[in-house]
Parts: sequence; structure tokens; C-alpha cells
Amino acid sequence: MKNILLTIEYDGTSFAGWQKQPEKRTVQGELERVLSIVCNCSIQVNGTSRTDAGVHALGQRASFKGDFGIPTDRLMLAANNILAGGMNSIGKIGDLRITSAKDVPENFHARFDAKGKKYVYKILNCQETQIFSRNLVYQVRKNLDAEAMKQAAAYIVGTHDFKCFQAAGGEEKKTTVRTIYSLNINEGKTETGQKTLLLEVKGDGFLYNMVRIITGTLVDAGLGKINPETLPEIIESKERQRAGHTAPPQGLYLAKVYYNLEDLICL
Amino acid sequence: MKNILLTIEYDGTSFAGWQKQPEKRTVQGELERVLSIVCNCSIQVNGTSRTDAGVHALGQRASFKGDFGIPTDRLMLAANNILAGGMNSIGKIGDLRITSAKDVPENFHARFDAKGKKYVYKILNCQETQIFSRNLVYQVRKNLDAEAMKQAAAYIVGTHDFKCFQAAGGEEKKTTVRTIYSLNINEGKTETGQKTLLLEVKGDGFLYNMVRIITGTLVDAGLGKINPETLPEIIESKERQRAGHTAPPQGLYLAKVYYNLEDLICL
Repeated sequence: MKNILLTIEYDGTSFAGWQKQPEKRTVQGELERVLSIVCNCSIQVNGTSRTDAGVHALGQRASFKGDFGIPTDRLMLAANNILAGGMNSIGKIGDLRITSAKDVPENFHARFDAKGKKYVYKILNCQETQIFSRNLVYQVRKNLDAEAMKQAAAYIVGTHDFKCFQAAGGEEKKTTVRTIYSLNINEGKTETGQKTLLLEVKGDGFLYNMVRIITGTLVDAGLGKINPETLPEIIESKERQRAGHTAPPQGLYLAKVYYNLEDLICL
Repeated sequence: MKNILLTIEYDGTSFAGWQKQPEKRTVQGELERVLSIVCNCSIQVNGTSRTDAGVHALGQRASFKGDFGIPTDRLMLAANNILAGGMNSIGKIGDLRITSAKDVPENFHARFDAKGKKYVYKILNCQETQIFSRNLVYQVRKNLDAEAMKQAAAYIVGTHDFKCFQAAGGEEKKTTVRTIYSLNINEGKTETGQKTLLLEVKGDGFLYNMVRIITGTLVDAGLGKINPETLPEIIESKERQRAGHTAPPQGLYLAKVYYNLEDLICL
């Protein structure tokens, strides 16, 4: 029995999220459909993270098992060819792509063996709405105070009960304690000179909508609606309503999954 | 009778082009639908340029006439509100937007009074396919020789019979002679360091698919498939098959429409 670990990249705009649902176009559904064709048997994939509708991935991971003859490297090329539009797909680019496929031990599981993840969240901070990036960034029109956001972010790093950053509706978790290894805010500019903020957050696990609520809280700090120094109290309170708004899905990217604790802490 | 001139911006990805067609989502169709609601009467707009499916606009123009009470500035806000998704559209961003609306003399016509246009064409030149910009740039994976492209471009500037750059299927034109005032190629880099080429072309008019065929010809020169010094012969031949390939629609942006000849030549 082969066990294959995929790295996957997708633009989440036209997907109803990762998880397979009847009658909807989902990332898991598309992958299973295409891999079942390529492997000539029914394939079920286990993804690391169940990204929501509109959320993107640069380095989602998924593993699947089966007895199939096709070599692992050929499998990726064949699947990507179908994903890009099939037969006449030279030069065509789809919204979902496998970027690596490798054989892993039979007991390896893409989700249960993950030690942590990195997400990035992209904010465009300019007065004028930008239509071309509407599905790829969170556009905040009022000026954001990046220093206040960095000050607030510093309180989030560490091991805490993050219940205040958990949305209702996710699966039941045994504990809401998580460790955030780093939370950085990088200021930049687009090609045309607009201000951008790139949040990078690494942690051992994330509660439902946690990155989006953290981002919304930092944006509220950047807008002066939340005093950065109250972050410890907000976390301590464990009350969702004391934290900030939930930032929209289109700015969020699952950037990397870590299977080695050292990579997670050091890189 | 009012006559209003609009400036319009759109992401052409989800439109079947400018021109109204039954059962299809077109820019003209969407604009007329929304303006008819806002003006409370049936509106027909005259666009400057009939952009193809997948082609974008930063500064398309369109004019329309009618006897309606709504002030011109309110009209733009109301139309944009509906275009962004209506009632609960705060913060939502659509793929079509009016960026200016002004009253013009009753005999003014957005198309017939245009003295010329500027198009830009965006090329991403990097080996690795980029899924997130797939609808917004032409991705050329083999290395492009920008100097060869600039050398070829220089032969295109001026007044010529450009029949070699005309695709079949457009409307019949009286003459295929046009003046290209400038054709510049600007090299740049994306935020993540990939090479970009931005073509900017200004002319008094363009034949069907002319900018896309010029771009394809310059790309072929950049790939070494066409010798830049043969451009005068290619133009002279008036044969479409001697020019290069037709570059895809997604890299093309109608950037500006000129109603003043001096602006066209000097700016």
C-alpha cells in the first residue's frame, strides 16, 4: 500500500472551502475527483487544514493511500494537467495545483502528524478600493497604525487559553490552549505604491477562525478601537465579544504545515 | 436632455466582454441594468471600446442620455452601491465600478469623439506558474529578451497600414492605416521578485485584436522566434500570418481614452 503526501496551492475564491460537500465545488472534492481518475481507483484524501470558503493556500498538505501503479512524480503531472483544464491545457492555469508529491511511511497522516502551521494574512491599507485584488487581500481604507498593531501582537505570542479568539460553529476541541510561536507584521508596498501589511503567524494549532479573529483584533488596535495594552485582559477574559471583528476570508493564506517541531520553532 | 460621460474600471475575468449579448453577463449589459434602476428609465450606454471577454479596463469610457432627475454625482454613488452588491455592500468590492461621471454637451459621444486610446499589457516572465495572477497577466515561462522586444517595438511606432496586426472577425474598417504614437516596454519586478514587462501603447485607433497581436509579435521577438529587424517587412507584407501569435486577453487593460489630441501626443 502506497501512502502519498501532497503539497497543494489554491486560490480559494471559487471554492466552497476545503471540505467535501454535496453539489459544491470544494478543494477536497476536486482533488479526489482528479486523483481517482489518475489512479484509476476511488481516492480519499486527508487534508491538514479545513480552510473556509474564500481562504487560500500556498502550502496545504494532504495524504492519501492506495494500491496504484502510477509513479508518484507522474501522478502529480497527470493530476495537474487535468486540474488546469485537461487535453488542451498547455499554458492554461487553474486555481488549484499540486506543487509536490512524495511517498511517505504507511502510518503517516497529513493532519494528525502535523506539529504546527504558518498562516499569512494580507492587508491592503489604502483609501481607494482596488477591484483587481478584491479576492486576494483585506482592504482596509482607514489608516492603520502599524506600531499599535505590533504592540498588540506581542501579547498574543506564547502559550495561552485562546478561547476569546474562537468562533462558534467549529468542531469541539478538547482544549482551547494553544501556543503561538511567532506573530509578525511586515509593512510593505504594492507595485503601485499602496501600503500593505503582511501578518505571519506560526502556532502549534489554531481554533476555528482564530487567525481571522486575531487579525480583526489587530486591525481594531490599528484603528484605535482597541487599546493594545488591553490584549492580556481580553485573552484572560476568554470572551469572544471582547476581541475584535472577524477579518474576511479573502486575505487569509495557509502558508506552511510543519511536521518537525524544530522547523516550527526555528524557521 | 442630460448627456453623461462615465469613466469605468472593470476586471474582465467574469464578463463575456463589453458588448451586450442575450443571456450573458457583459459590462454594457450590467451597466445598463444598474443605470436603468438608478435613473428609473431605460438607459442605453455607448462605450468607447468593445473589449473582448477577459480583457480589463482601468479607464473605459461610456456616455448615455436621458431626462432624469438624479444629480450626476449621486448617480455614480447609487450605481456603484448596486454594482458592489446592493443593500449590505459596505466593504464589499465588485468587479465593475464607475470612477467618474460628468455632464457633457448633448452632442458629445464617448466613442465617436475619442481621439485615441492607451492600452497596457501585463506580462509576467517567470518559470514557475503563478496561480493567483492567472486572470490578470500573461505568464510567459521562457526568458524574454527585453532588448529584442524594444528593438521590434520601435519599428511599430508611427503611421502604417497595420493590416498584418488585424485578426479576422472584427467589424469592417474603412482603412487599416493607424498611427501609434508610442509603444514602451517597462521592465519591473513583482513584490516577490518575479520579472514583469509592462507594454504601454498609445494610438489613434486599433484594429480588431491589434494590441494582442502586437504583444504576441513582441513576445515572439523576445523568444528569438522573430528577428526584430524583420518588423518593417512584416508590416509591409500586410499578412497576418507573418506577424506573431495573439497574446491572451487576460494581460490586456484599456488604460485611457483621449478626447483631446494634445493629451494623446504629449502625455
